Amino acid sequence: MTIPYKNQVLPIEKVFRDPVHNYIHVQHQVILDLINSAEVQRLRRIKQLGTSSFTFHGAEHSRFSHSLGVYEITRRICDIFQRNYSSEHLGEDGWNDNERLVTLCAALLHDVGHGPYSHTFEHIFNTDHEAITVEIITSPETEVFQILNRVSADFPEKVASVITKEYPNQQVVQMISSQIDADRMDYLLRDAYFTGTEYGTFDLTRILRVIRPYKDGLAYAMNGMHAVEDYIVSRYQMYVQVYFHPVSRGMEVILDHLLHRAKELYAEQPEDYQLSSQLLVPFFKGNYSLQEYLKLDDGVLSTYFTQWTSLPDPIVSDLAKRFLMRKPFKSATFSGQKDTQIIEHLKKLIEKVGFNPKYYTAINSSYDLPYDFYRPEKGSHRTQIEITQKDGTLIELSKISNLVAALAGQTHRDERFYFPKEMLTHIQENHYDLFDDTYQEFSTYIHNGALVDGKAIK
Amino acid sequence: MTIPYKNQVLPIEKVFRDPVHNYIHVQHQVILDLINSAEVQRLRRIKQLGTSSFTFHGAEHSRFSHSLGVYEITRRICDIFQRNYSSEHLGEDGWNDNERLVTLCAALLHDVGHGPYSHTFEHIFNTDHEAITVEIITSPETEVFQILNRVSADFPEKVASVITKEYPNQQVVQMISSQIDADRMDYLLRDAYFTGTEYGTFDLTRILRVIRPYKDGLAYAMNGMHAVEDYIVSRYQMYVQVYFHPVSRGMEVILDHLLHRAKELYAEQPEDYQLSSQLLVPFFKGNYSLQEYLKLDDGVLSTYFTQWTSLPDPIVSDLAKRFLMRKPFKSATFSGQKDTQIIEHLKKLIEKVGFNPKYYTAINSSYDLPYDFYRPEKGSHRTQIEITQKDGTLIELSKISNLVAALAGQTHRDERFYFPKEMLTHIQENHYDLFDDTYQEFSTYIHNGALVDGKAIK
Amino acid sequence: MTIPYKNQVLPIEKVFRDPVHNYIHVQHQVILDLINSAEVQRLRRIKQLGTSSFTFHGAEHSRFSHSLGVYEITRRICDIFQRNYSSEHLGEDGWNDNERLVTLCAALLHDVGHGPYSHTFEHIFNTDHEAITVEIITSPETEVFQILNRVSADFPEKVASVITKEYPNQQVVQMISSQIDADRMDYLLRDAYFTGTEYGTFDLTRILRVIRPYKDGLAYAMNGMHAVEDYIVSRYQMYVQVYFHPVSRGMEVILDHLLHRAKELYAEQPEDYQLSSQLLVPFFKGNYSLQEYLKLDDGVLSTYFTQWTSLPDPIVSDLAKRFLMRKPFKSATFSGQKDTQIIEHLKKLIEKVGFNPKYYTAINSSYDLPYDFYRPEKGSHRTQIEITQKDGTLIELSKISNLVAALAGQTHRDERFYFPKEMLTHIQENHYDLFDDTYQEFSTYIHNGALVDGKAIK
Amino acid sequence: MTIPYKNQVLPIEKVFRDPVHNYIHVQHQVILDLINSAEVQRLRRIKQLGTSSFTFHGAEHSRFSHSLGVYEITRRICDIFQRNYSSEHLGEDGWNDNERLVTLCAALLHDVGHGPYSHTFEHIFNTDHEAITVEIITSPETEVFQILNRVSADFPEKVASVITKEYPNQQVVQMISSQIDADRMDYLLRDAYFTGTEYGTFDLTRILRVIRPYKDGLAYAMNGMHAVEDYIVSRYQMYVQVYFHPVSRGMEVILDHLLHRAKELYAEQPEDYQLSSQLLVPFFKGNYSLQEYLKLDDGVLSTYFTQWTSLPDPIVSDLAKRFLMRKPFKSATFSGQKDTQIIEHLKKLIEKVGFNPKYYTAINSSYDLPYDFYRPEKGSHRTQIEITQKDGTLIELSKISNLVAALAGQTHRDERFYFPKEMLTHIQENHYDLFDDTYQEFSTYIHNGALVDGKAIK
Repeated sequence: MTIPYKNQVLPIEKVFRDPVHNYIHVQHQVILDLINSAEVQRLRRIKQLGTSSFTFHGAEHSRFSHSLGVYEITRRICDIFQRNYSSEHLGEDGWNDNERLVTLCAALLHDVGHGPYSHTFEHIFNTDHEAITVEIITSPETEVFQILNRVSADFPEKVASVITKEYPNQQVVQMISSQIDADRMDYLLRDAYFTGTEYGTFDLTRILRVIRPYKDGLAYAMNGMHAVEDYIVSRYQMYVQVYFHPVSRGMEVILDHLLHRAKELYAEQPEDYQLSSQLLVPFFKGNYSLQEYLKLDDGVLSTYFTQWTSLPDPIVSDLAKRFLMRKPFKSATFSGQKDTQIIEHLKKLIEKVGFNPKYYTAINSSYDLPYDFYRPEKGSHRTQIEITQKDGTLIELSKISNLVAALAGQTHRDERFYFPKEMLTHIQENHYDLFDDTYQEFSTYIHNGALVDGKAIK
Repeated sequence: MTIPYKNQVLPIEKVFRDPVHNYIHVQHQVILDLINSAEVQRLRRIKQLGTSSFTFHGAEHSRFSHSLGVYEITRRICDIFQRNYSSEHLGEDGWNDNERLVTLCAALLHDVGHGPYSHTFEHIFNTDHEAITVEIITSPETEVFQILNRVSADFPEKVASVITKEYPNQQVVQMISSQIDADRMDYLLRDAYFTGTEYGTFDLTRILRVIRPYKDGLAYAMNGMHAVEDYIVSRYQMYVQVYFHPVSRGMEVILDHLLHRAKELYAEQPEDYQLSSQLLVPFFKGNYSLQEYLKLDDGVLSTYFTQWTSLPDPIVSDLAKRFLMRKPFKSATFSGQKDTQIIEHLKKLIEKVGFNPKYYTAINSSYDLPYDFYRPEKGSHRTQIEITQKDGTLIELSKISNLVAALAGQTHRDERFYFPKEMLTHIQENHYDLFDDTYQEFSTYIHNGALVDGKAIK
Repeated sequence: MTIPYKNQVLPIEKVFRDPVHNYIHVQHQVILDLINSAEVQRLRRIKQLGTSSFTFHGAEHSRFSHSLGVYEITRRICDIFQRNYSSEHLGEDGWNDNERLVTLCAALLHDVGHGPYSHTFEHIFNTDHEAITVEIITSPETEVFQILNRVSADFPEKVASVITKEYPNQQVVQMISSQIDADRMDYLLRDAYFTGTEYGTFDLTRILRVIRPYKDGLAYAMNGMHAVEDYIVSRYQMYVQVYFHPVSRGMEVILDHLLHRAKELYAEQPEDYQLSSQLLVPFFKGNYSLQEYLKLDDGVLSTYFTQWTSLPDPIVSDLAKRFLMRKPFKSATFSGQKDTQIIEHLKKLIEKVGFNPKYYTAINSSYDLPYDFYRPEKGSHRTQIEITQKDGTLIELSKISNLVAALAGQTHRDERFYFPKEMLTHIQENHYDLFDDTYQEFSTYIHNGALVDGKAIK
Repeated sequence: MTIPYKNQVLPIEKVFRDPVHNYIHVQHQVILDLINSAEVQRLRRIKQLGTSSFTFHGAEHSRFSHSLGVYEITRRICDIFQRNYSSEHLGEDGWNDNERLVTLCAALLHDVGHGPYSHTFEHIFNTDHEAITVEIITSPETEVFQILNRVSADFPEKVASVITKEYPNQQVVQMISSQIDADRMDYLLRDAYFTGTEYGTFDLTRILRVIRPYKDGLAYAMNGMHAVEDYIVSRYQMYVQVYFHPVSRGMEVILDHLLHRAKELYAEQPEDYQLSSQLLVPFFKGNYSLQEYLKLDDGVLSTYFTQWTSLPDPIVSDLAKRFLMRKPFKSATFSGQKDTQIIEHLKKLIEKVGFNPKYYTAINSSYDLPYDFYRPEKGSHRTQIEITQKDGTLIELSKISNLVAALAGQTHRDERFYFPKEMLTHIQENHYDLFDDTYQEFSTYIHNGALVDGKAIK
């Protein structure tokens, strides 16, 4: 008698050493096969945090290790749910362990469509990593599909529907995607570990102890309220301290302009870029296949950048060097409309000393909503975090935590104007030149790290 | 009055967040300039542990972060030496803080000549990362040289001589390179942190407390003997558990054969490889410049491997896929001469099922000498570790530590025969084919992970 | 020539291994002598967290280890101040290192007047650990005084004035006592370490990097704002999660009633207590000397409690057993005036089943003000936390942190009514007795851990 | 229907926060009742490491927290065994989960007979903590017995037989007591955590992964060999660095002499000690009951020492002060017979300056056998550590680990002669007195921390 593929477990559990979770435990043959698939292995070559490693040199970890981590947290939740909250005893408020495999697969694959420096790449080339994730899962050409399809013919679609949140069981959906899900929990801990900051740490063991299923999703026991609160605060601090870091964004801005410029030049002189960046050509043309997308990774981009440093266009070669040698643009904060005029004026000064403002300045805004609760007046909203009281009734988190209430519903925003470092250092370095007055004037528009009206100051 | 470049300190100390040392502290303008140089920034794109990240997925850290770590440990030693053991008080048994800058520069630059997967790359292309390190430091074309040369005309040569161990002050040389130096101390701690193993941890703070200079080098206070002993044991365990890991070596073997095959084919059909791997061409030709070497990194190799998966040669495209998709060769241990015949026979079986043994088998040996003491009868030997007794006399470590004595002077060796995984899994997967008897026979030659005489067993 | 005592440094720095700060470094002979004094050594026998170890079994650390920790943080701040912000360069905005010794002594001695379970003990016996701290420092009979007096005749008074905040240099005062001082920083980290919770952790290294002196006290660089914010949040969470824990307070309530009852009985039958608790007699009498106070410690109390378990009074012997065997009272929260009537009714029920409510019930309130800023309308207020902007101006913390703003000026309060566990477990244990209706009624007054109007629920 | 007591599980698992294992998980009512028993709670008042906290001030943890830790490790092993190696599948090479409760009880209770400073106390008063452990478990008067007896009439004896190693199932016995058992694993990790040293750390998670039952006990999978090796080395280092520390032993020596002297004096003047140390009287008399033993703890001893400082005997009051104020005796190493004469001579010098050598000197020897294997020629021996090879055969650890081979069968010994610190510091402090020549002579017999022949040196 053969065991159906979906039930095949490894004779001995396989483990991967993980610095964050100690071990990643794999019990199903399906999961091991997915980890070994070409599409998942490719995530080893894509950094989790993109340009953040230019600020935090330890943060060189890949999307592969994050994907394993999300899988592992999900697996631990399933174990706890099966042990303590089985639907056999609790009915629809309990966990049905037949959902385990689809949940684990969705956890492992939730980011499989990411490409190199996704945020910037998508901006320039109109790709969409979420759509590609679904495509990888549901296209017969991929190894991932082949594996899922062996489980059952409708299994790939089921896994994809968890990721698109259309799966009927909201316990499964929320484990992968909600305000406190396995994805966020892993990346906070993992990014904290590899950056070496401590802001992202929270008490995962305690959260796993207090999470529980109910009919419509997930809730948290009252005695774990402070652990959840701590998670929200940690998340907020990681955004403010790590993810929004102005230096990382100063590198992202360079990357953005570099790819943009190359794309423009391809239209004019395709042969240069065909030779030096063949795997990017489909994207320059705006017409790419899934297989072409799957050949991209961080190393492909940096290799082409190295090759571009020898191209004749001075902007492409200069921006490529700035990226490879980590020369981020500098920045100053500004607040909305009122500073528009100052920015226009600064762009003129920048142009005056020889930089094309189109490629050498940028506006970059980071914003995050640390926590939100249900607001019927808003069209779209997030699943709020529910706390279970002793008598079983639910209460929304911000109602009982004034720390969370302080963060709830408020978007945190950091808007910056970016420009070449040369605009500031010329003066400091003290070798006066033709443009000294321009540099001098430029510097008067920046005070305590923010744009100010330079004339008022003078 | 201008401050000489070598004495320029930053108005506010600059720090880099580091998960291992918490912060890397930079006080000298020279050091900051070196960190920002093109040659040092390039180390961000070269993984510290090469193929080990295929076994330990967290170990994706770069040679850049290790270089900062070596610098930081060296800086801390200099601080302690200046505070407690200044030559102003102790004469030639003390530390002369004028040596600080040359020491820090040598620490930061000691690995600057590394290329991608150095061990394998050097084997195929006859490069030598140590010679290139010296070349980067002393060639007028590099940014590193330009910076060092601003300190003084003989400074680049001085820094280089620390790395080649020819520098007269042995305290400086041993800080960078001895059996217990800043290099080893950083990589043990760093590799332990990123792999997530605990074997590499030892008490750095305590070692820094007990290290002291004397006329001919460095010694350790008696009350720190056990911390030094613990370091030796940790080092041994990292070698056995991490650096020698058979799976990482199973990937290295593939990389080796892949580059070897491509080099051979270049001689036959250069045009294929010119298009798909232009930055490697000088190495295929055996004639490369320093600038060409400095363009290489891990991403360049993996990008070309991706491009090679479409080449017509079945061996190159298959090995490239195995590398990108992490399909390591399997292995069995053997012991020297007596197993040669078995290996020859196994190669024939491997050939029989269709694999060219030249590219699909390998012998790979790892060996390490965990600690050595001075043995006059041997031509070359390492600097032994000296412990200072209360009355100031020195005693060699293994004389007072029986743990170290157990490891001293013994080379630990792990020799393995590598072959395609298919030789074993075919049988397990149970779909019998034409070559089943061959696979069956093959498997009888391996028992408890080692080669055995198959016939005796049958 | 003899070196003055205050300048005597140890030939080799002495260190104490510390799990929180790795090492405590002692350089001055004065500090080493103070650590070795009888009054400081006595702190080894007094637990830092009193009854909290009944909830968190790891929290058995003593006030001695905390005192060393406060000293060490202070020492590190002095080192950083001397290196970076010396008054030689900065004038009155800088740090004058002649203040170091007085600061270190005050740091080490700030808690030297603590007795066993201070909070409760002071409540019953009208002692005051702050006044006793000053007395220990300034009374000729103590070893501490003898040591300080060797420095100079006015030195004991100087050290005492730092602790009473009367010392003129506010930099010194704030290092020991302000909203973010060495005392609080050590106890948060230390209590987090020993309880095994993670709430108390914050980035000490970063705070030490950004703290700086100015004319009127201490401030923090803007780029460390989030580390300070994180400290405030951590402090808040330690209060809510650890220091206010209802079980620890359930033991404190027993201790309070036990000492109170014994004191009452001493007035009636002094001979019982003279024999079984001779060191407490002066406190029963309300007339004690400093030397008598210094003989008390946690072990003295628990020894007498063991001896009291054989005394005839059933209340003393029962409460002593409850304390020694860790049988905390249970509790329910209530909110102020409106629940007074319920409490009175519950006391009657408790009395009905045989417990004297005077000794078997209690009201216990915990409250904390996590952060406060200067409010001129209030008579007394705390020193607010100041952040230094790039141009040197100061800004108060809650103005730029909305997390801190959420906590500022709000007292967090947790009020509980305590009663014997028997009131609830009788029912659960299912052996019905005479008083079953009373227990039954009692339980209706508690819902979701809070007092409710039992009748409404029925 | 009532559930039998032994099968009663808590409705919700109860947890205790633990800094070493994160959480201690309690599922059985029996275990919770044992934890809450008077005899186990009493362990809160007895420090795990006795006088070691005088050297490592963090090491103030109690035998209570260690007992919980041993229980928790045992529980985790049972969980893993039940999941992976159930006797239902593996027969007598597997784990029978009916053994779980007896194993957990034995784990929790294995140290319940310890008293204050057991080693010294037993030496003076001829008590035996192992015999008392058995007595507590099997005497009807204890709460522990009452609880165990509710499980079944023969259960107390069964639990006791695990501790005495007479229990038939050797898997159970070895989990609690062997060369690598839950007891040792917990104390190494716990003592490392609280002392703040890192020597005791090893990879518990990995050891738990590779431990497995077989017919005659426990074995370890080959791929975990290095984790076991690391444990042996850690254990060795904790002995050498922490447990043998000369300063802790310098306090132990004082404690020993103090109790010895008091016992002698009791015979002469019983009334002094009846008043000041009533709970010790039965031990002075050499005739004590179990209940009297159970009243002792660390606090009882220190309270009596405080009371003894006022007694007329100068030796008792002086030694009591030395203990309370942490004034350890100093020491020098010596090696066996050859130094006997020197020691006799030094005692005479010590007597000459006024100390009674009987109470002011001591010989103290520490020795440990880090690992042993089976040696048929020896009568008694330890259970050796077995490693399981891929084909299921066992191999003894030291055969495949040369680190362990280096430590195996070798007793490590540290023998010291103890004497009052005054013998050395008098000279250093430079106030010459009558006995200066004696002190001077004394010092010539100590060199590099060891006894030497003083005359040869002069």
